[in-house]
Amino acid sequence: MRIRRIEHLAIAVNDIDEALGFFRDILQLEVSHTDIEEGQRVVVAFMPVADSEIELIEPVDDDSGVARFLQQRGPGIHHICLEVDDLDAAMERLREHDVQLVDKNPYVGSSGRRLAFVHPKAAHGVLIELYEAQPGDRRIPRVQNIDELRRNLVNRSRIAAAGTRGFFAGLWSDGETDD
Amino acid sequence: MRIRRIEHLAIAVNDIDEALGFFRDILQLEVSHTDIEEGQRVVVAFMPVADSEIELIEPVDDDSGVARFLQQRGPGIHHICLEVDDLDAAMERLREHDVQLVDKNPYVGSSGRRLAFVHPKAAHGVLIELYEAQPGDRRIPRVQNIDELRRNLVNRSRIAAAGTRGFFAGLWSDGETDD
Repeated sequence: MRIRRIEHLAIAVNDIDEALGFFRDILQLEVSHTDIEEGQRVVVAFMPVADSEIELIEPVDDDSGVARFLQQRGPGIHHICLEVDDLDAAMERLREHDVQLVDKNPYVGSSGRRLAFVHPKAAHGVLIELYEAQPGDRRIPRVQNIDELRRNLVNRSRIAAAGTRGFFAGLWSDGETDD
Repeated sequence: MRIRRIEHLAIAVNDIDEALGFFRDILQLEVSHTDIEEGQRVVVAFMPVADSEIELIEPVDDDSGVARFLQQRGPGIHHICLEVDDLDAAMERLREHDVQLVDKNPYVGSSGRRLAFVHPKAAHGVLIELYEAQPGDRRIPRVQNIDELRRNLVNRSRIAAAGTRGFFAGLWSDGETDD
């Protein structure tokens, strides 16, 4: 497998607006895009840094994996995303080496992104998203109001994204709820 | 201030050799360099990823900041490093905005790197190293034996790098030991 780049770092925060007061207003990172990630029930602000991005993620309710992470650990880096050249081949390699995965198979996330998560237990405490670029999965720059995004997400049905959300909720707990 | 790129991510691990079994042998990242960071009392393995690096850091004794981090949180991402174009200007800006800093002024780390750390309390739980590239501070690729590096570091005097180590030891504790 070949890892092309660090595609993004995701930082879990309690309040994106407050966090932007540091990352945007003081560090002067630019917000290129804001959106919701329905499966994880988070609002996201994307800030490009060279060929990578820093993402701020804020949960909109108390029972998502990101919310659990915040409750247990406080704000901080939630996961890193590594772009691979061939996600199927990467997953096959990880399975061959008995690496514990959050997602047994790749799935399609927001904006048509094809991705899968490796369990932090297998990766020395780091939750790793593996992502393979697809034609047309580039995010279109668009900064929407954070409050509108929150309301939008809260109002949507609470149907969890297949499987993944349950895994995420258990990732940072002490118990073995996730496999 | 202008942030040029994510220069590296540092992952605190209990045992670099074991961690390389995942990051090098399974993810197939290449180790370009191994070294010690005397001030933080860690052995480091550097793995380039595009224009960034992933670093594995292993403490050699129990009383460094990285050791404390591992004791309290377990392995995981310890800090991120952002390259800035002008570190003095960046520090000035941070001071103007009353951002809590680990290092009040930039200092010269290993390989002649000029850097300073922002306190995680100011950065939503993320320990941020700011770094300004200097002529001649590129690391020369050289992979030394990890065990030799450990012994080398343990045998050196325990004189702490000015100030920084004490701050690092207190960073992740609940008490306000650091200011």
